[in-house]
Amino acid sequence: MRKWIVGVMGPGESARAEDLANAFELGKLIAQEGWVLLSGGRAAGVMDAVNKGAKDAGGLTLGVLDKAARDGASSAVDIAILTGMGSARNNINVLSSDAVIACGMAAGTASETALALKAGKKVILLNTGAESERFFQKLVPGRVLTASSAAEAVEKARGILGE
Amino acid sequence: MRKWIVGVMGPGESARAEDLANAFELGKLIAQEGWVLLSGGRAAGVMDAVNKGAKDAGGLTLGVLDKAARDGASSAVDIAILTGMGSARNNINVLSSDAVIACGMAAGTASETALALKAGKKVILLNTGAESERFFQKLVPGRVLTASSAAEAVEKARGILGE
Amino acid sequence: MRKWIVGVMGPGESARAEDLANAFELGKLIAQEGWVLLSGGRAAGVMDAVNKGAKDAGGLTLGVLDKAARDGASSAVDIAILTGMGSARNNINVLSSDAVIACGMAAGTASETALALKAGKKVILLNTGAESERFFQKLVPGRVLTASSAAEAVEKARGILGE
Amino acid sequence: MRKWIVGVMGPGESARAEDLANAFELGKLIAQEGWVLLSGGRAAGVMDAVNKGAKDAGGLTLGVLDKAARDGASSAVDIAILTGMGSARNNINVLSSDAVIACGMAAGTASETALALKAGKKVILLNTGAESERFFQKLVPGRVLTASSAAEAVEKARGILGE
Repeated sequence: MRKWIVGVMGPGESARAEDLANAFELGKLIAQEGWVLLSGGRAAGVMDAVNKGAKDAGGLTLGVLDKAARDGASSAVDIAILTGMGSARNNINVLSSDAVIACGMAAGTASETALALKAGKKVILLNTGAESERFFQKLVPGRVLTASSAAEAVEKARGILGE
Repeated sequence: MRKWIVGVMGPGESARAEDLANAFELGKLIAQEGWVLLSGGRAAGVMDAVNKGAKDAGGLTLGVLDKAARDGASSAVDIAILTGMGSARNNINVLSSDAVIACGMAAGTASETALALKAGKKVILLNTGAESERFFQKLVPGRVLTASSAAEAVEKARGILGE
Repeated sequence: MRKWIVGVMGPGESARAEDLANAFELGKLIAQEGWVLLSGGRAAGVMDAVNKGAKDAGGLTLGVLDKAARDGASSAVDIAILTGMGSARNNINVLSSDAVIACGMAAGTASETALALKAGKKVILLNTGAESERFFQKLVPGRVLTASSAAEAVEKARGILGE
Repeated sequence: MRKWIVGVMGPGESARAEDLANAFELGKLIAQEGWVLLSGGRAAGVMDAVNKGAKDAGGLTLGVLDKAARDGASSAVDIAILTGMGSARNNINVLSSDAVIACGMAAGTASETALALKAGKKVILLNTGAESERFFQKLVPGRVLTASSAAEAVEKARGILGE
């Protein structure tokens, strides 16, 4: 039976404390909704925190990794998709996600936000800064949502999923 | 917690009746082992049959699709990875599989067998014909196993997983 | 002998008249420098215009296409790389470019700008708007250059190439 | 103006002396025809030899590399496409080639032969061994040609290009 997949994108090594806290909370809430969590899967920053949050609540976690082998993956990833294709895998992340949340902002996250918009999807920006909100909302009016807490981001994801 | 992923590759539209029967049985046995099934995910041939077999036994099914959208996916795929990258996704299939089984043979399956060998993996050939066995066994001696039934293929997969 | 490759990224169907004029001029100047032009290669917007400009000055043009077949490619592309992988090819565009220029801004262009920055490269923004300049310069300080004309963009590319 | 692209695939480190001699000769003949040479681009085996042959005759050489950076590329590659996607780039090699020649056989070459056939293309096998000829000719009857010399392979490529 088809499961909803919610993708959370965010900084790796450059993640701030508030991004990590938001990510952990997002992971928990996503798992509590019964959704599958998708992330870039690495053992760093938002990727690691969101998977740990989801496992904390008993969820199923999917990591789409840049590498061809599992080393470097978060220990909280249940299912690792090993692409071996570097940042080109960012497009797979957004295509495979029924709803996309950016939790914090870095270059990789910006590419995922842009690729999601390019694919015709909506993106929810959580604490990504005023500059990114202004840029993406002007770039693709009407498809860039913002949230100021993990709970609000999940509520907006629910809206995208039509639930 | 990490789950073993076993990939089953095989013909789509050109699958023979015996490939479909083997695929359904493979799916069932893989699910009964508690492994995650990975396949190309399309609603055709071996891909469709192996997912249906796995769901019949209550397994978890992962489809790594060539397309960017879910239409065309097998209804028995729980989690669809939408790559939008055509046959280049065949490399993801084999990289992500802890054990690889070819169930029948066609051009796509041959590419997956070759890509798995290129990545240093073993491949189990189930009913793929004498020519493919001779070719691949000469190409990479010692890493091409053969099986004459779904049960034997799963037994050899267990050996690869070190269980 | 190795040739410098300069990539020009920009909107397709949504390109403005000024983007098209800049792109044609960029193509001409790049060809006059003896550089190979790389673009997304489609017969639309900046991609089409920059290739036509380069051919107008007798340059060599390389198109890295999203599709698996040549239809839809600009007639001014000499060498078409057919990736068949949709927007995931955007990462190939920036990895393969010794210097990257964004000429106008759209979702695909934003992804290429972000992917280039993610890969550790500099990007030259030509007429992409104040919001994109503020966003990308804050995102990766020191690696986002701006230009107000095709000539200035090419001069900054020369700096990146170390010529 | 569109240029014909002829792809030569073959073993890297495992290439035999006869594969290297054939590859050098193929490169020369392809350049003399005025075709662009496409290869996997690495500084090893058939990839290196075919590019050197093509440069010896003043041709244009295109290398579609598995890596994200240029190190490891053959010095005889004029234009390097840096994919950073490992063996998944093999599909780009065959999609981008108007005619495909396999010069010797190894796991990567087998994947390229299979991917070309999957994409509906013909493949010319040059000295790849009886087992590979039997396997691929049975797999896709009518689209697998054989050649016993570089000159014969180029003649058959000319037939595919319709010249």
